[in-house]
Amino acid sequence: MQEHEKGFFTEENSVEVVAGRNRNAKDARLKAIMEVVTRKLHEAVKEIEPTQEEWMEAILFLTRTGQMCNEWRQEFILLSDTLGVSMLVDAINNRKPSGASESTVLGPFHVQDAPELPMGANICLDQKGEDMVISGRISDTAGRPIEGAVLDVWQANDEGFYDVQQLGIQPEFNLRGVFRTGADGRYWFRAVKPKYYPIPHDGPVGQMLNHLGRHPYRPAHLHFILKADGFETLITHIFDPHDPYIESDAVFGVKQSLLADFRLVDDAARATGYEFEGSFWEVEYDFVLAGKGEAA
Amino acid sequence: MQEHEKGFFTEENSVEVVAGRNRNAKDARLKAIMEVVTRKLHEAVKEIEPTQEEWMEAILFLTRTGQMCNEWRQEFILLSDTLGVSMLVDAINNRKPSGASESTVLGPFHVQDAPELPMGANICLDQKGEDMVISGRISDTAGRPIEGAVLDVWQANDEGFYDVQQLGIQPEFNLRGVFRTGADGRYWFRAVKPKYYPIPHDGPVGQMLNHLGRHPYRPAHLHFILKADGFETLITHIFDPHDPYIESDAVFGVKQSLLADFRLVDDAARATGYEFEGSFWEVEYDFVLAGKGEAA
Ligand SMILES: [Fe+2]
Ligand SMILES: [Fe+2]
Repeated sequence: MQEHEKGFFTEENSVEVVAGRNRNAKDARLKAIMEVVTRKLHEAVKEIEPTQEEWMEAILFLTRTGQMCNEWRQEFILLSDTLGVSMLVDAINNRKPSGASESTVLGPFHVQDAPELPMGANICLDQKGEDMVISGRISDTAGRPIEGAVLDVWQANDEGFYDVQQLGIQPEFNLRGVFRTGADGRYWFRAVKPKYYPIPHDGPVGQMLNHLGRHPYRPAHLHFILKADGFETLITHIFDPHDPYIESDAVFGVKQSLLADFRLVDDAARATGYEFEGSFWEVEYDFVLAGKGEAA
Repeated sequence: MQEHEKGFFTEENSVEVVAGRNRNAKDARLKAIMEVVTRKLHEAVKEIEPTQEEWMEAILFLTRTGQMCNEWRQEFILLSDTLGVSMLVDAINNRKPSGASESTVLGPFHVQDAPELPMGANICLDQKGEDMVISGRISDTAGRPIEGAVLDVWQANDEGFYDVQQLGIQPEFNLRGVFRTGADGRYWFRAVKPKYYPIPHDGPVGQMLNHLGRHPYRPAHLHFILKADGFETLITHIFDPHDPYIESDAVFGVKQSLLADFRLVDDAARATGYEFEGSFWEVEYDFVLAGKGEAA
């Protein structure tokens, strides 16, 4: 009998020895997951050949990352985000049929219970920032409008902060709203042009980004959750394509199809119609929802 | 230009997009490490295809693991240990020339400043447990005895506890000692037969082991650090081959070559010579140290 067959460790058979120890796992899925985790972890270690000091640095980095977490801060999600893992998990779980709008990460700033508003409402409650009107159509993959689709939108203000990050500074539910489509499947509302903002970068993940020569910014975007009976829920963003960080989103949320058209409009009559003063931004973006069970 | 060349995320090019973001890393080694980490992490996610719930479970597991760490407890090292990573890093950093004794993990219970004792001393200070005498020879790979080799030994007592885990119960420096060889390279000392013990298993790693159908025990062993001028330092254990957990060490520390001979001796004259009463255990183990720079 060879060493590794007795459960003894050898460098060559390290994966077999370690994963083999799980033969009595209580859950077949967990066992399968741990086989992959063990194999890829050992492959990584064998390729990197860390010194004991480097290994200890990794241990301490992970420790600090866990210790940074509290009720308000999830540093391991930030780590997942900044290593592209969150987007990968999102992609794997949201493969869409041809023509359907693409998803991206939810992010930490969604809140339940944002108010349902009439179409055209202005979700900016403090008159700060550059006026913006956004409109579009929600349809199925055959191009038919979806009636009764619910669009839940939230965004940062023109300084890059969400209301929940500035309690007492921004009004409650500032730059949030829920809209419901009529028979034409169209939506529109007023808001302000969002601005890029940094992910929290005063912790271990921020230090990692710094060492890697990366910035912590996310390009300006609006978040959406779209729901409709008989359709897959869509969690996505739309992005300002002119944002300085559009090609370097710290969390890799940008996809080509999520770039919206942001046009600066200088038209006094239209501005008055929207109760805006001076020029404003006009954004158009159409959403296409995948039917429940519609093949990817 | 393709999407991923603009830094936009695609499932197919996820590694290229994420690792490509490190082009301005401040440290070439870190950049190389992160390329491997990103690639293996994404490979693992693509193979596992976790649901969002499974991904969140992983995030929360890592979070709890970090939060379990304090001055006295390093749960991420336990995770590394129980996934065989610590042994792998040890193996990579301690490839030995043919004939040299093999290494294993240091473990958390070594202390500096254990007393230097004369050969033959009894490191068991509280007369608890089954008497044991251990002896052997420390030589180079050519078989020549090493004079002035320093052997630092520590072990758990017959209930599976180290002195530092039972402050006030065990005497200070119980079952620890430092010995220095003479011209013959031989060592010997008296001790007690060690017992298996569990790694700390009241945290997330213990839960993981439980879900995987694994126990938390390490088979009975003695720890050694051997140092001598001109030789590579050797950190290792020797194991009781009859231990019930010898083929399932929770941290994978066992290697075939580290199994020692544990013999029960019933010889009144020899017992009296060692100041033992009744039968005792006799262990023989020879160590071979690799010369500094001697090829692996
Ligand atoms: Fe956001
Ligand atoms: Fe130990």
